[in-house]
Amino acid sequence: MTRQGRRPGKPDTKRTILDAAREAFAERGFDGASIRQIATGAGVDPALVHHYFGTKDQLFLATLHVPIDPAEFLPQILSGKREDVGARLVTTFLRIWDSPAGTALAAIIRSAMTRDATLRLLRELLITQILRRVLLHLDLDPAEAPLRLSLVASQMAGLGMMRYIIKLEPLASAPPEVVVAAIAPTIQRYLTGELVCSSQEA
Amino acid sequence: MTRQGRRPGKPDTKRTILDAAREAFAERGFDGASIRQIATGAGVDPALVHHYFGTKDQLFLATLHVPIDPAEFLPQILSGKREDVGARLVTTFLRIWDSPAGTALAAIIRSAMTRDATLRLLRELLITQILRRVLLHLDLDPAEAPLRLSLVASQMAGLGMMRYIIKLEPLASAPPEVVVAAIAPTIQRYLTGELVCSSQEA
Repeated sequence: MTRQGRRPGKPDTKRTILDAAREAFAERGFDGASIRQIATGAGVDPALVHHYFGTKDQLFLATLHVPIDPAEFLPQILSGKREDVGARLVTTFLRIWDSPAGTALAAIIRSAMTRDATLRLLRELLITQILRRVLLHLDLDPAEAPLRLSLVASQMAGLGMMRYIIKLEPLASAPPEVVVAAIAPTIQRYLTGELVCSSQEA
Repeated sequence: MTRQGRRPGKPDTKRTILDAAREAFAERGFDGASIRQIATGAGVDPALVHHYFGTKDQLFLATLHVPIDPAEFLPQILSGKREDVGARLVTTFLRIWDSPAGTALAAIIRSAMTRDATLRLLRELLITQILRRVLLHLDLDPAEAPLRLSLVASQMAGLGMMRYIIKLEPLASAPPEVVVAAIAPTIQRYLTGELVCSSQEA
């Protein structure tokens, strides 16, 4: 789940490229920024950007120091049985946050809160690296999909925040299976269930 | 919903009291800190602390610049029909966040992320000013109540984060009734429904 290490390269050049990339992604968004523009901004050849950082997706993850690549783990979660996708998403989410990568993720989220530019990058990360991939793999009604995905994002973000950043008990130290049992049905309903229904006691 | 204004008082004295209070709450938590200790820390009489800031709850809200007092609006939300409490909670949550107080709340949460002491204060705020009051008014099984409340907190925090801070569309600009219809059943299940159940397509 950790990203492949690439050859180190000259630290100054890599840092210059990352700075240019961060600025481009924050100003123009992921889709609006191009490797060519970033290379120009850093005063290097586009081939060098690819050489050091791989794809545009990978460069974007590197600008935020994201320690995992959703392209690696999302497809398999999303390709299993449709009625269990909620449980698989929550289980994997907890496994990542409970790993060393979780500490890095908490740091990214906490620091994103302090600067609007980083907050925009975090939103781009969520949309382009995670939600779009979920859309690709799940066959959702296009009219409803965006709302469904943002509801999923709201519960997942809140779970991450309360369990790993605010550390609210007993959620912070509940066994993963308890958390999955409680939250998976929510994710499942947001993805595949009825969204507009009268609230009723279960 | 706005807190009652108190007489202004000498700015320096009020600031000294607030600084002492913030330090005491961050170090010893809400329950561990006392007005007497805070007054001693600020070099003033405890009566002056009450005079300027009212109760310990109100002093605590003032240290975080929280623009609303949960003691004022929570009881009525929680005292209505039990099977609609999820919808009432989400509706009120959106009304507060959509008001000018929402901007202040977003600022508090964003700034809390940068300092561990403020993050601890935010957790104390959540536990002592909100979750305890929900517990008081809803008749929940004491063995399950803490987990239920922290699940509710996770969905509410994630909703606030995605709609008002990260501003993820379409959740950010969805009409309140759409958000309530989608999220109220989640809150209702966390509060009064079955927590351990196999996930299934609705």
